[in-house]
Amino acid sequence: MKGKVYLVGAGPGDPDLLTVKALRVLRNAGTVLYDDLVSQEILNLIPPGAQLHNVGKRCGKKTIQQEEIHFLMITLAQSGLQVVRLKSGDPMIFGRAGEEMEALRHAEIDFEVVPGVTSALGAAASTGIPLTHRRLSSALVFLTAHQASNSETAEWSKLAGSGSTLVIYMPGQNYDGLSAKLRAAGLAAETPCAVISRASSPQQRTHITTISELKSAPRLASPTLLVVGEVVRFANRFSFDDISSDHSLSGLLSNFASQTQTAEEEHSREF
Amino acid sequence: MKGKVYLVGAGPGDPDLLTVKALRVLRNAGTVLYDDLVSQEILNLIPPGAQLHNVGKRCGKKTIQQEEIHFLMITLAQSGLQVVRLKSGDPMIFGRAGEEMEALRHAEIDFEVVPGVTSALGAAASTGIPLTHRRLSSALVFLTAHQASNSETAEWSKLAGSGSTLVIYMPGQNYDGLSAKLRAAGLAAETPCAVISRASSPQQRTHITTISELKSAPRLASPTLLVVGEVVRFANRFSFDDISSDHSLSGLLSNFASQTQTAEEEHSREF
Repeated sequence: MKGKVYLVGAGPGDPDLLTVKALRVLRNAGTVLYDDLVSQEILNLIPPGAQLHNVGKRCGKKTIQQEEIHFLMITLAQSGLQVVRLKSGDPMIFGRAGEEMEALRHAEIDFEVVPGVTSALGAAASTGIPLTHRRLSSALVFLTAHQASNSETAEWSKLAGSGSTLVIYMPGQNYDGLSAKLRAAGLAAETPCAVISRASSPQQRTHITTISELKSAPRLASPTLLVVGEVVRFANRFSFDDISSDHSLSGLLSNFASQTQTAEEEHSREF
Repeated sequence: MKGKVYLVGAGPGDPDLLTVKALRVLRNAGTVLYDDLVSQEILNLIPPGAQLHNVGKRCGKKTIQQEEIHFLMITLAQSGLQVVRLKSGDPMIFGRAGEEMEALRHAEIDFEVVPGVTSALGAAASTGIPLTHRRLSSALVFLTAHQASNSETAEWSKLAGSGSTLVIYMPGQNYDGLSAKLRAAGLAAETPCAVISRASSPQQRTHITTISELKSAPRLASPTLLVVGEVVRFANRFSFDDISSDHSLSGLLSNFASQTQTAEEEHSREF
């Protein structure tokens, strides 16, 4: 009997942010093919009898080719195993699930996609940044800065500057380049942005700045996300005094210096 | 002692797609303020002793004002209750969490955001549509068509036509208008799109068509999502024959007639 492949979203990192279904599928896995970005706490949930395969590709250094992942998934399923292909965040966003589903359909392997909380949503929840806002942002754009190219620059110019919130996945550490690209796309120098590192984990760090000041932001540990837009003004770091002394949003950045804060500091400011 | 407010994402509808944390918070709730779109199966998980408040606003008919929701949340928390503000999908996307967090901060009420699987991810998983694709779509845009306005039209023109996947939340049933707006935004008439109704529920229905044919699509039950872009060609309805006889993607829509299918039909076609 053929096995089945589950393309599963592991969420942003905190095992509590797995879906109930993802947790169940993981606990019944015969074998798990996981990416580098899946947290150890989540890997710890996999039953001891299951085979584990790290199929991560990091920073362009391909330790394993996409075709090898397809071959592994198919071969393991054909041997009758319940195969979990575990991806950080959600499989359908920047996760190459499209290619993997194509390969599975072609090999006539039964599969199911189990969605997950994509990193942007985990980061929004833990930093208090609403990704849309009735008065400030009526659209949300997810981009990746993984492959910088001219066509990408043209695309950014269309997507930015329409009052949308931008979330850049895998922004890398070339903050100078990112800043220049965002300016070239038509965004104002003073547009607020947040670099969020290891969202939803105890090691989460958040650095809030503006596009023009981004170049001097500290290089935070991977994985990071860059959130760009007026909604960043809502991040939890603003104290009650800021909010209650000025109900208009325009004043909130009056003393807007670049600031970094860890999850621990954030926690100590909880109200 | 003051209580606390949890802004919780209920996910797309299937209780299995709640996060582990959301399920725990819901089971310990003292009172729950929920929206119309939260499914009955999820409401059934709330303990019998908890107070339930439907604070839904549907199709512009405001049975309750946003300010009343703020007032309720704050008053209930001040009375010492653990208050769950339960929203379909994720609270930070089109959920007015920004305004609710502002009100809670102003009232000095402790709160926490629990992210959820936003509807687009639930729909992508259950229809097999990858929202990004290395060869076809490197950006993803979430929009709402709830309030049609001239400024919105201008915004759509910027966001569409850049090779991105568009997901339109709350598209309404004016498919003629939507089709015209997408064409005006620069998208080709033959761009594939999918109307997905009640994603992730047993009543899920999917209608796959093109922008030009959208006007004659059946009006499916709310809540719906409209997914627009080349990635729609990957939807599960394509049989193995389509995939294996033509590996290039360009041929997949050769016999592309408008087709509707229910979750049951989909299930029966599972491979």
